[in-house]
Amino acid sequence: MTESERERRPEADEEREDEAYGLGSEVVSEVLDALEAEDAPRVLALVDDLHVADLADLIEQIGSADREALIRTLGDGLDAEVISELDESVRDEVLDFVDPAVLAKAVKELNSDDVVYLVEDLEDAQKEKVLEALDPEERVVVEQSLAYPDYSAGRMMQRELVKAPPFWTVGQMIDSMRAAEELPDPFYEVIVVDPAMKPLGVIPLGRIMGSGRPTLLSEIMNEDFHAIPATQESDDVAYAFSQYHLVSAPVVDEDGRLVGVITIDDAVEAMGDEAEEDILRLGGVGDESLADRVWDITKSRFPWLAVNLVTAILASLVIDIFEEAIQAYVALAVLMPIVASMGGNAGTQTLTVAVRALATRDLTAANMWRVIGREALVGLINGLAFAVLVGIMGVVWFGDPMLGVVLAVAMIGNLLVAGLAGIAIPLALDRVGADPALASGTFVTTVTDVVGFFLFLGIGGWLLL
Amino acid sequence: MTESERERRPEADEEREDEAYGLGSEVVSEVLDALEAEDAPRVLALVDDLHVADLADLIEQIGSADREALIRTLGDGLDAEVISELDESVRDEVLDFVDPAVLAKAVKELNSDDVVYLVEDLEDAQKEKVLEALDPEERVVVEQSLAYPDYSAGRMMQRELVKAPPFWTVGQMIDSMRAAEELPDPFYEVIVVDPAMKPLGVIPLGRIMGSGRPTLLSEIMNEDFHAIPATQESDDVAYAFSQYHLVSAPVVDEDGRLVGVITIDDAVEAMGDEAEEDILRLGGVGDESLADRVWDITKSRFPWLAVNLVTAILASLVIDIFEEAIQAYVALAVLMPIVASMGGNAGTQTLTVAVRALATRDLTAANMWRVIGREALVGLINGLAFAVLVGIMGVVWFGDPMLGVVLAVAMIGNLLVAGLAGIAIPLALDRVGADPALASGTFVTTVTDVVGFFLFLGIGGWLLL
Repeated sequence: MTESERERRPEADEEREDEAYGLGSEVVSEVLDALEAEDAPRVLALVDDLHVADLADLIEQIGSADREALIRTLGDGLDAEVISELDESVRDEVLDFVDPAVLAKAVKELNSDDVVYLVEDLEDAQKEKVLEALDPEERVVVEQSLAYPDYSAGRMMQRELVKAPPFWTVGQMIDSMRAAEELPDPFYEVIVVDPAMKPLGVIPLGRIMGSGRPTLLSEIMNEDFHAIPATQESDDVAYAFSQYHLVSAPVVDEDGRLVGVITIDDAVEAMGDEAEEDILRLGGVGDESLADRVWDITKSRFPWLAVNLVTAILASLVIDIFEEAIQAYVALAVLMPIVASMGGNAGTQTLTVAVRALATRDLTAANMWRVIGREALVGLINGLAFAVLVGIMGVVWFGDPMLGVVLAVAMIGNLLVAGLAGIAIPLALDRVGADPALASGTFVTTVTDVVGFFLFLGIGGWLLL
Repeated sequence: MTESERERRPEADEEREDEAYGLGSEVVSEVLDALEAEDAPRVLALVDDLHVADLADLIEQIGSADREALIRTLGDGLDAEVISELDESVRDEVLDFVDPAVLAKAVKELNSDDVVYLVEDLEDAQKEKVLEALDPEERVVVEQSLAYPDYSAGRMMQRELVKAPPFWTVGQMIDSMRAAEELPDPFYEVIVVDPAMKPLGVIPLGRIMGSGRPTLLSEIMNEDFHAIPATQESDDVAYAFSQYHLVSAPVVDEDGRLVGVITIDDAVEAMGDEAEEDILRLGGVGDESLADRVWDITKSRFPWLAVNLVTAILASLVIDIFEEAIQAYVALAVLMPIVASMGGNAGTQTLTVAVRALATRDLTAANMWRVIGREALVGLINGLAFAVLVGIMGVVWFGDPMLGVVLAVAMIGNLLVAGLAGIAIPLALDRVGADPALASGTFVTTVTDVVGFFLFLGIGGWLLL
């Protein structure tokens, strides 16, 4: 590799690099061919090489009929971890044709958090079927987790953990772990608890390994740790993991007693879900996945389009006011989308930054006014720049300097409004407890459409007629 | 807490829960007050309680003048980790007024990956200043990392790691770790290497702790691990960590020799950056942070608005074709934004889902045609639904059944086109190696605007005049 090749960002290698991980599309075709040929040994051989996460992707990507054939071919070779990796809609479908006996056997291998994730959205009959497969103690533990609210730390946590009293030595700790039938997996920290089960500190495994056998746990434990209340929302948990670079954190009940542990893989999942939700909501899409069916998708997108229809009609009502001006000067109709569209774009830019900054908690009461002022200024400067451009365009295209002035003035006004609306609307929604990603876009483009048409047609009607 | 309160998603508690972690806005005000009063001991006391990540947020959120005052007040109490937590633009600003001696001392405490992150975007003079502060060996290590491309695994990895030969026993391993002056932090896995330094397997610390002293490392090592090439792109690394729930992975050079290790905190950072980039690009914003200055923001948003201006002009040119029809029938001008706006919205919905599915690798060659067919069908069904609504509206508002027909037909056509363009354009951009998040939005809304105006005005001119 030459030095100049090293310098550039390796975007062009993407095609090749993509192949490095994940499910290759050749594998998908080969599996589909083998299913078609009803060649079960070939299917099993192909699938055997796949990581559970890749197999889950495969199950998601193929059609419903192939999916059923694949699950039936896998039979009791189906790993419960694969099911817990599936998207909700596909998981429900798959569980419908998994043999209950197979499911029962498979579920026993899972950590409690994966069982919870697997059953939480099931219908009662199916849920009961899975829970019955568990040992009585394990079942109690899963049901306790299920008693916590959706999207809470209690749902994310696993009950499998290693705890110890502060007066134990490193030697005792190691001996106890060696004696344990099975250690939790994943497992990164020992939690030191008092007799009432309240966490006193955490010790990363690396620190235990680096300490001599006589060392007391109380000497090496980290007392400055984050105990997460079981009722805390999953996105706050994700924030704590990301902000403080945690890999594992104890979860406590309302009395401060240790009830479980959340590990980084669960937090990563929650972070991904949160970013996903923001992206989809900003794009005017609800909670939708690629595996959903046509009818579900159509229904979920309809309300957003309906809201947009209302705002589009609002814009039409504004245009309607200036019907006579348009009839008298038809260039107004030709040019009117420009100012509105530029405002919509500028407003979307600002609100995108604002929504992200609110999500990452970079935009707070402390810097709110400075950010608002800055957005207004950015809107004004870009407004001036584009005013010059469209002003010239108005003169050149229609040969009317006054039309240029109308375009320019409306542009400055609308980009200023776009900057202000783009920051003020998400802030206001956040203040009243609504998700700013959910509705900001519609509000902001409604404002910029209405103001854009009003300014352009209003000033145009006044100056040109 | 009652049962019904448990059931609901605890969104309303957000205000309170937000306070659980992160920087409180009271702290920011108190620090600003103390800086104002030049009360250094009070500033230091307030800041002392903060986690490095929260202190970094504080430095980002306050204005430039306060920022400088705060850094000067902190003096040699400034932790280099705080600097490595800062956003790029703020970090460059802060480094300008940090005492080089303070910086030199602080940098020595960092892992190699944090030093790399700190210096990679510095100007040469500043970079040299930081590198000079390092021990010669450490400097070599950092410079080796810097030789890898931006956004590559080589830049993300830390050089601090624990390796061992396969013939070592657990006892030897533990003794060697106890004897080590310092163990890496973070540290989750021992990497087993052959004499040529090629990784043979990894052993999570938990497994070492659960095994007896005589156990050979080769017996307990995990041979099915992911070795990451140092030149691999950071978003592929992030994908591997997320897909396979990794916490740590060895990094190898082109000869397959171990050169470093990437830990989950770095991968989480890369995942966050990737989601952030997608969100911002979909919103028509470049690489922008809340801490950027007015002029930088204005410049970075200008090109996107300029592209939008071109597409808006394109739409105007389409309208211009039908100037006579509008003059003859002005209701066309009043209603024309509706069809275009609905198409833009529907197209944005589809492309948002497509861009995300491409990013998470759920949309592949294997399911592409099925997804395209589905999007066309969703567009058609929603097109029919809204055709009925706007058809009725055309009749009721303007009392002209034919106008209702025009609206309805144009709506069906544009929503169908929106669904197809919304999926085809991101797929095509991805195929040619471009980032689908970057330009899809503009292309899709250009298509839906042009088609929307063309269909509505074209059919209108034909049927109504």
